[in-house]
Amino acid sequence: MIRLTIINPNTSAAMTEKIGHAARSVAAPDTEIRALCPGPLDGPAAIESHSDEIRAAAAVQALIQDDLARGGSDGYIIACFGDPGLDAARELVDVPVIGVAEAAMHVAMLAGRTFGIVTTLSRTLGRARDIAHRYGADGALVAAYGSGLGVLELEDTRPEAYERILGWCRTVVEEDEADVVVLGCAGMADLCHRLSASLGVPVVDGVAAAVGLASGMARMGVGTSKRDEYAHPPLAPRVRAAETTV
Amino acid sequence: MIRLTIINPNTSAAMTEKIGHAARSVAAPDTEIRALCPGPLDGPAAIESHSDEIRAAAAVQALIQDDLARGGSDGYIIACFGDPGLDAARELVDVPVIGVAEAAMHVAMLAGRTFGIVTTLSRTLGRARDIAHRYGADGALVAAYGSGLGVLELEDTRPEAYERILGWCRTVVEEDEADVVVLGCAGMADLCHRLSASLGVPVVDGVAAAVGLASGMARMGVGTSKRDEYAHPPLAPRVRAAETTV
Amino acid sequence: MIRLTIINPNTSAAMTEKIGHAARSVAAPDTEIRALCPGPLDGPAAIESHSDEIRAAAAVQALIQDDLARGGSDGYIIACFGDPGLDAARELVDVPVIGVAEAAMHVAMLAGRTFGIVTTLSRTLGRARDIAHRYGADGALVAAYGSGLGVLELEDTRPEAYERILGWCRTVVEEDEADVVVLGCAGMADLCHRLSASLGVPVVDGVAAAVGLASGMARMGVGTSKRDEYAHPPLAPRVRAAETTV
Amino acid sequence: MIRLTIINPNTSAAMTEKIGHAARSVAAPDTEIRALCPGPLDGPAAIESHSDEIRAAAAVQALIQDDLARGGSDGYIIACFGDPGLDAARELVDVPVIGVAEAAMHVAMLAGRTFGIVTTLSRTLGRARDIAHRYGADGALVAAYGSGLGVLELEDTRPEAYERILGWCRTVVEEDEADVVVLGCAGMADLCHRLSASLGVPVVDGVAAAVGLASGMARMGVGTSKRDEYAHPPLAPRVRAAETTV
Amino acid sequence: MIRLTIINPNTSAAMTEKIGHAARSVAAPDTEIRALCPGPLDGPAAIESHSDEIRAAAAVQALIQDDLARGGSDGYIIACFGDPGLDAARELVDVPVIGVAEAAMHVAMLAGRTFGIVTTLSRTLGRARDIAHRYGADGALVAAYGSGLGVLELEDTRPEAYERILGWCRTVVEEDEADVVVLGCAGMADLCHRLSASLGVPVVDGVAAAVGLASGMARMGVGTSKRDEYAHPPLAPRVRAAETTV
Amino acid sequence: MIRLTIINPNTSAAMTEKIGHAARSVAAPDTEIRALCPGPLDGPAAIESHSDEIRAAAAVQALIQDDLARGGSDGYIIACFGDPGLDAARELVDVPVIGVAEAAMHVAMLAGRTFGIVTTLSRTLGRARDIAHRYGADGALVAAYGSGLGVLELEDTRPEAYERILGWCRTVVEEDEADVVVLGCAGMADLCHRLSASLGVPVVDGVAAAVGLASGMARMGVGTSKRDEYAHPPLAPRVRAAETTV
Repeated sequence: MIRLTIINPNTSAAMTEKIGHAARSVAAPDTEIRALCPGPLDGPAAIESHSDEIRAAAAVQALIQDDLARGGSDGYIIACFGDPGLDAARELVDVPVIGVAEAAMHVAMLAGRTFGIVTTLSRTLGRARDIAHRYGADGALVAAYGSGLGVLELEDTRPEAYERILGWCRTVVEEDEADVVVLGCAGMADLCHRLSASLGVPVVDGVAAAVGLASGMARMGVGTSKRDEYAHPPLAPRVRAAETTV
Repeated sequence: MIRLTIINPNTSAAMTEKIGHAARSVAAPDTEIRALCPGPLDGPAAIESHSDEIRAAAAVQALIQDDLARGGSDGYIIACFGDPGLDAARELVDVPVIGVAEAAMHVAMLAGRTFGIVTTLSRTLGRARDIAHRYGADGALVAAYGSGLGVLELEDTRPEAYERILGWCRTVVEEDEADVVVLGCAGMADLCHRLSASLGVPVVDGVAAAVGLASGMARMGVGTSKRDEYAHPPLAPRVRAAETTV
Repeated sequence: MIRLTIINPNTSAAMTEKIGHAARSVAAPDTEIRALCPGPLDGPAAIESHSDEIRAAAAVQALIQDDLARGGSDGYIIACFGDPGLDAARELVDVPVIGVAEAAMHVAMLAGRTFGIVTTLSRTLGRARDIAHRYGADGALVAAYGSGLGVLELEDTRPEAYERILGWCRTVVEEDEADVVVLGCAGMADLCHRLSASLGVPVVDGVAAAVGLASGMARMGVGTSKRDEYAHPPLAPRVRAAETTV
Repeated sequence: MIRLTIINPNTSAAMTEKIGHAARSVAAPDTEIRALCPGPLDGPAAIESHSDEIRAAAAVQALIQDDLARGGSDGYIIACFGDPGLDAARELVDVPVIGVAEAAMHVAMLAGRTFGIVTTLSRTLGRARDIAHRYGADGALVAAYGSGLGVLELEDTRPEAYERILGWCRTVVEEDEADVVVLGCAGMADLCHRLSASLGVPVVDGVAAAVGLASGMARMGVGTSKRDEYAHPPLAPRVRAAETTV
Repeated sequence: MIRLTIINPNTSAAMTEKIGHAARSVAAPDTEIRALCPGPLDGPAAIESHSDEIRAAAAVQALIQDDLARGGSDGYIIACFGDPGLDAARELVDVPVIGVAEAAMHVAMLAGRTFGIVTTLSRTLGRARDIAHRYGADGALVAAYGSGLGVLELEDTRPEAYERILGWCRTVVEEDEADVVVLGCAGMADLCHRLSASLGVPVVDGVAAAVGLASGMARMGVGTSKRDEYAHPPLAPRVRAAETTV
Repeated sequence: MIRLTIINPNTSAAMTEKIGHAARSVAAPDTEIRALCPGPLDGPAAIESHSDEIRAAAAVQALIQDDLARGGSDGYIIACFGDPGLDAARELVDVPVIGVAEAAMHVAMLAGRTFGIVTTLSRTLGRARDIAHRYGADGALVAAYGSGLGVLELEDTRPEAYERILGWCRTVVEEDEADVVVLGCAGMADLCHRLSASLGVPVVDGVAAAVGLASGMARMGVGTSKRDEYAHPPLAPRVRAAETTV
């Protein structure tokens, strides 16, 4: 049995539940999913700025340390499109740690030659491009748009929100000629299949992508290299955090 | 049940069997593996040159067409480190098609910041670097070496062959300071765990990596984008090929 | 006397004749041109997909081997814009082997700072961008368009086909501000001067460009380096092919 | 009068004092320097891992917010070579915010064609290369070495520590043929002139470099663009922190 | 006291005066500015082509040699956006030599993630992109436009000229989504604050930027590395030039 | 008849004669070569620094203007490895203008996957790398060395000079594993065949390479695009120069 822990670094229990559901729907029979988020005072309500990312990264650190104290998991997934705290998380464990932006970009590169990102606020696009470079995806990334919808507005189920996202996806496919669309927020996980059906191209949700990558690596026995950069940090960090399991 | 077809584009039944074994050892319970190779006259004995790659690519095309005629699979894996015929194979199907070099490089990038390749003959390194660029891995690839062992010499089980490969892996880790080693030949799949234990860093075999990626994508319902480049080719190619299933 | 063999990898005798004519019109007095194509069953009718490229590459291999059996040439030109089989062809000989896309891009970089490509079907643009990177031309390449005209439609001499290509060339020059236009199909060789006169910028046909490069290298005594990657392949490939000389 | 606030994100008062001294020694007559660090429980003792960076970034956020509550400064400098929290700090203010790695790399590019970095632990080199790319310095960066000396060991004034750093600097100049050496830790600020005299090439300390850049920008009236990415974050972050002014 | 010599490589005394004024308005109290240009026959009237750049570079060489003969300065600034003769000037001295394009691009990268250039004639954009690459700014440079105004037309104080430049700046900010605008001509120095007020983003004039960089480097004791490329040239160049001090 | 004018921008009549000889030895029967250099006071004695390049570029401008006054040529070659004044020369004419570094790099990319440069003084390597980037050759360029021999020392015919250059060429091939060697000085043109015979790989002299490229372009009717950047300069440059024809 492969046990994956998915950390939603924001404090929304509803979003964490949605993320857990998306993960379970693509998990193999041998894969067990646990989805966590920080307690209401231990993380940002949403992650829409570099300032939010700092709090998110701290929450990821704390939740992984707590999980390690309880015995640890076979892999970790950071379920926020900026992949906050990913490098630091890798220092803490020797199993795979996968960010959902990282996972989505790698899978998008396998599904077509080019992809585009549709995310929440345009102010997060700088971070998206930074990590696209870091993951080797900047050559394949042909467009990135903010929909103008905030992270928490994604819980709005009215057609207007869906239509707005669909509209940006169409731009990505028709004007930027991307083969694949990447959804730039873990809170969009539930829109994936509907968008793909409308657009006629693969639409990649990072949560589902990360489940495949992390469980695949776990089955291979390939985790995080502890050679130098990702060796356990010399100064033991220790931050406690409340947590909400969904 | 996810059915993956792995195509070894060379004609070695022994290597095909080894590849099938490596794949099955990392497959999830819901994943069924079939490993094929071209008949003795329908492909190259080994793939060690650009000239061999042309015959290999033709064999991959033919074997996928045959598989489609029998109902097709949920994903295809091309089990030669040069990923011969990968783009063309994607034109034929709408499910995932993954090359083992592609898979190994993506997984290596998830397991550390940098990786190095140890392959067979140095003359294949140009192709390896070309595809590393294509896959966005050229920033992470810090070294690539030919061991001087030909593809078929890998079936040699004497300690000398293993030691030679281990020596190059050590160079990759100790001198080039790579976090991860990628084995540059599908015929090295069986050496992976032993090398990793000796080296203390993750060693990635592309066959196992591809099984994780292809099955993960199949579970997500993400296949090959048929938008333009990978749409079915306008002129129906048709080449028959004998095949050896292992 | 410098003897160049130009291989059109598709089976169109009419296009092969056009290519031979274009080549002879720019050959120096000391340069003799022979233009070949595979027999009707030995290659693709047109090359408009990655699948077609595999058959094209095999045809190039076979025709060069036949030419070598007859004594060989002082240089080879592969007259299809995807340069199919170029690396493999270099393994077979020690004289220059030049692809027409390669030649066109190098000459375009000498004629201006930037260039754009107008080709046949947009599905071939991925390959065009891949090889532009390989040839160091990706920095100079500012636009690439498919005209929507198939390779064989280029034999259509009605004004509509010409106007459509001219229209895309204008976009390249006026909107993308390219200094030079590259024609992305050997079958466009005859349009070059007329387009250049209409546009007021250099328009480069790869066949003519390749004749200059291959004959220049032959006069210098510079051929293909046989150091490692392009040394003769260890496993002698041997495929026979009928051929049509024009 | 230009008032610059320099934030040492680790909790070492001694290092903060050294940093303040280095800054004042290069400040113009119209420039006033204040050097801060977090209180002993509000930041990491040293910053030698990605995990430390998260705490450092949070400390930078808190100290800038406190400074803003007291009226703010004309520019901020983050005095740790990983530039922790730089993007987030830019969201909080409209004056210049400069990281010392960023400053050192920009000045190094003005002082020669190439530079090398000598830093503390090799595990921080991944971060150094990431930010070198972000700052456009990856083309000029020809070598980066960890000296093996921890951040706090730099306060060791015995000749051995100096000699070790000098040795790596010599490697950078003599073997990697760098024109300039960048010191990869704010705690090395005091070694700069002595190393430069020994080596005969410019040696750049980021603290001094940042004072020049931040005060120059302040005099020009050029601060941080508040257009989109660096606009004030939508969710007001609020973390209090004790602080130690030196 | 830091003495900076600013060389306007064109022969316009009026523009030289404007440049000197712009420089003095941002100089620290300890910094003295001298602005020079070549005599009417010793340089180009304006620098709008590669041909003009050759004459400009020769003028810069001659004026620095004259200044050295009079005792030299603590830093040199080349006040033409193509930075003509910058590498050669660095060979002559061991103090900082800064080009205004170089300075503007470095400061723009510190003020936002992306910037765009608005310059004089579009024919100079090739040079602007070349040097952006050289300075590591090509990743941050998202747009570059020629306004169509010649260098000397910038002295035109009618509203039309200002409005035209403002219009291109708006395009840079609103369509290309640049965080910062760089003015691509030393003769635009006086427009900087007015444009910034209209646009709401930082607008960077290279002259002011260079004063900050050169004086900051002078205070740090960091000049031009004389290691190899910028060592004094083996063949002593010697060209005399009349000069106009403003 | 194609008339090519080759400009050696230094004042050495002996080197100009050697260059003319090298060019004629590879010219097609329809190609006529004229080799020029500036008069003794009108250019640098050798070109070994950025300062020398300025004088060289001015000499190239003057000699092309003189040639134009006499009716012009069908193509121009700038025979100094830094390609001084290349962009400016392109402004003056509509025929091809080729630099010998440019030519050598393009031909080297056609003769193998990778190349290395062996040049005169290491101080010129910065310029060599700059132009390699400009020509799209930086991916193929795997090594560049200065031999320590000055330009004029190349006229030394004693074995020591040859052996020293051969030694660096061996390093390029054996340690850096380059497929091809490029000679980084027009004054090395006569060593090419002997070095190639010793090394067993193609050795490219830029003068010969440029003759092939320029004459090939002239036969195709492809010259310099006059669209914008290379249109005739708005301010007519006019510098007279004495000249020495060889």
